Amino acid sequence: MPTVERIIADVRESGREAWFYNVNAADPEKRAEVLNDVARRFDERKRDEQLRVLLHSLAFGTLRPFAPFEPGDEVTQKQMDMTCDVMAHSLVYWVQDCVRKKLMSRQGRIYAMTSTGSTQVWKGYGAVSAAKSALESHIRQLAFELGPLGITANAICAGVTDTPALKKIPDSDTMVQVALRKNPSHRLTTPEDVANALVALAQPCTYWLNGNVLYIDGGEGHTG
Amino acid sequence: MPTVERIIADVRESGREAWFYNVNAADPEKRAEVLNDVARRFDERKRDEQLRVLLHSLAFGTLRPFAPFEPGDEVTQKQMDMTCDVMAHSLVYWVQDCVRKKLMSRQGRIYAMTSTGSTQVWKGYGAVSAAKSALESHIRQLAFELGPLGITANAICAGVTDTPALKKIPDSDTMVQVALRKNPSHRLTTPEDVANALVALAQPCTYWLNGNVLYIDGGEGHTG
Amino acid sequence: MPTVERIIADVRESGREAWFYNVNAADPEKRAEVLNDVARRFDERKRDEQLRVLLHSLAFGTLRPFAPFEPGDEVTQKQMDMTCDVMAHSLVYWVQDCVRKKLMSRQGRIYAMTSTGSTQVWKGYGAVSAAKSALESHIRQLAFELGPLGITANAICAGVTDTPALKKIPDSDTMVQVALRKNPSHRLTTPEDVANALVALAQPCTYWLNGNVLYIDGGEGHTG
Amino acid sequence: MPTVERIIADVRESGREAWFYNVNAADPEKRAEVLNDVARRFDERKRDEQLRVLLHSLAFGTLRPFAPFEPGDEVTQKQMDMTCDVMAHSLVYWVQDCVRKKLMSRQGRIYAMTSTGSTQVWKGYGAVSAAKSALESHIRQLAFELGPLGITANAICAGVTDTPALKKIPDSDTMVQVALRKNPSHRLTTPEDVANALVALAQPCTYWLNGNVLYIDGGEGHTG
Repeated sequence: MPTVERIIADVRESGREAWFYNVNAADPEKRAEVLNDVARRFDERKRDEQLRVLLHSLAFGTLRPFAPFEPGDEVTQKQMDMTCDVMAHSLVYWVQDCVRKKLMSRQGRIYAMTSTGSTQVWKGYGAVSAAKSALESHIRQLAFELGPLGITANAICAGVTDTPALKKIPDSDTMVQVALRKNPSHRLTTPEDVANALVALAQPCTYWLNGNVLYIDGGEGHTG
Repeated sequence: MPTVERIIADVRESGREAWFYNVNAADPEKRAEVLNDVARRFDERKRDEQLRVLLHSLAFGTLRPFAPFEPGDEVTQKQMDMTCDVMAHSLVYWVQDCVRKKLMSRQGRIYAMTSTGSTQVWKGYGAVSAAKSALESHIRQLAFELGPLGITANAICAGVTDTPALKKIPDSDTMVQVALRKNPSHRLTTPEDVANALVALAQPCTYWLNGNVLYIDGGEGHTG
Repeated sequence: MPTVERIIADVRESGREAWFYNVNAADPEKRAEVLNDVARRFDERKRDEQLRVLLHSLAFGTLRPFAPFEPGDEVTQKQMDMTCDVMAHSLVYWVQDCVRKKLMSRQGRIYAMTSTGSTQVWKGYGAVSAAKSALESHIRQLAFELGPLGITANAICAGVTDTPALKKIPDSDTMVQVALRKNPSHRLTTPEDVANALVALAQPCTYWLNGNVLYIDGGEGHTG
Repeated sequence: MPTVERIIADVRESGREAWFYNVNAADPEKRAEVLNDVARRFDERKRDEQLRVLLHSLAFGTLRPFAPFEPGDEVTQKQMDMTCDVMAHSLVYWVQDCVRKKLMSRQGRIYAMTSTGSTQVWKGYGAVSAAKSALESHIRQLAFELGPLGITANAICAGVTDTPALKKIPDSDTMVQVALRKNPSHRLTTPEDVANALVALAQPCTYWLNGNVLYIDGGEGHTG
């Protein structure tokens, strides 16, 4: 939370507003509350504002194996459903609500954070991989349905980034070593690397760049 | 059902057995019942038998849009979860039970029927596309976990096939027209085309062919 | 040529310079002449200038079949080599010369125009498809080698665009019909659609977006 | 050569014939000589024989960088052309000649050995990567053109295999280490692993499995 407060302060210092909601983004009621609040604020300001960028970045999934030697440790139906709901399907519901409430229209940009796990296997990463595969599929479908409205949808595949979420992955040390070896610049990706690219990508002139998985990773993902 | 009875008769006429279970394959209790019955039969025969081939082919999903102009028609959380559970995740649970009950081991072959929808968008096909993407991911994870046991897992992407399931897809006429144009042989895929290939693929000597999406479509899927 | 002159006039009217070289871009001697002239001009201006964007867009290839029923029409070794040299390898040589002459360094952006032909078959398009596949491979290799220098390389896959080059493709009418059906916005791509996106993509802040095939096609390429 | 002689002896001992031609497979004249000789032998035997399997496996390419810091070491046009001609395009010419001479028809199976280099970057591997990308494209085009004749074409992506060709790759030690870590069975691929799978894949019943890149690697290629 101190980090969040620092970022909010940074944003405000630069003369912009920051509205922070600390809720479970996979909870339909919380989603409705947040978007209702955003809609109410927009209404009150009477500036005809809309959401320009929706960035989906939810990491909360099981890391159990599918079919281990030792039964008992394997992923359950409940865990699989939960992982896919939080990490993939929740994107669809947020977009549905934004479109329904007319919070996003022309020049809207939808991004979702995927990973190379969508196409590559990591030990224990099965449910998360499935969620990332589904997430990229959702992005393509949203690109198809919303493109004619001027809203684009693209997935972002960052390189391995040193974040709190990374450290929770069992084999994260190996992932870091592999990334440092593979990345052409032999360094990890930083949140700033991704944010900088999003500044360019979110501009109105990118309206025809739609339905992609964009690797913002310095070339790491395409290296063997 | 007459078709099923004809096929069972054909199998028996060729000197082989056919055990038919007409159950909801996505129901955990039914799954347990079927596999317990198979295990019991194997035990009674005392021939040290095992499952050689597990073919997952479940088509039951919503065809609603994600974010339509007319709210009210869009896919719901329940439909999304159900589609992914039936068409993708159920594969994992069947495999878990087979491994747990030691019904499948060396020379086991796991196949799952995917479609080009896993990478390509079709109108109204969003939830099914996500399920197919997740299904291919599951295949890769199972290939990784079970390969060392001598069990392989591969997805099968058949060309557009004239089946009862196809006709339920809203745009199936267009799909047929597109397939007839694209397929190098300008014909649809038949169930026999796929079955013939599986006869070869299921042989013990293919133990190292693992984790693929195999296009059994006469080249249709790679044509523009 | 009237079109070229109009564009040059437009550029100059906007207060920018345009240097136009009407040469065979696949000819090593012409390449040297052009780059020497650019280097000389940069030197004379003494503004410490460099190339910011290199866009490779060469369409000149054979459209013969590989193995036709009627021998005599098939692609020859000379045609295959020429097609790959012009449409793919020439990118590498232009980049080599730019790097060698120190015409491009930090913030350099390399783009190459690919097409869905790199992964999909079209009748008669075999040599061009191979060239596009090789071109995307070259982009990945250049991304790997030059990323650490701050130069990025990405391929651009535009949707079907109504250009003089399109009309030379035998089946271009079918391609247009297919694109109009598949494109979520049911229109062809325009050169402006691509140029607009490049304005954003070429900014310095995209330094970590590297090694991609970027679909600038309104979602057309991911639709079935 | 002792290995070759041993293999030929093995084949003959099993009651089959082996015709061995030790020639440069990328030389058009040698190609003609070999195929003329095969045609002549077939004619003499009067058994109405044809080629059933054509396996393309040519490794001979430059491993120079594209745009190195130290000019002088970079790949040349001649090396690029040669690498693509030998490792990719020669497949097309062999197939052209076989079709033209009616040496292959229904039930013909064309295979070409590719590698993960077709989609992934390795240091110094740029020209070879481009050749492998082009090779996979050629396979798709041949699948499209010859499928209606009953001839299929598929690329084979073996896992890292301990062969003399591997040892010539500069970074082969790293490749071996990476493969041992990634492969689900933590072992390298053997030529027998691939040959065993080809026995199944080459059967007549696989006529509809066409245009694929088949990973025969125990799942290695899809692991991160």
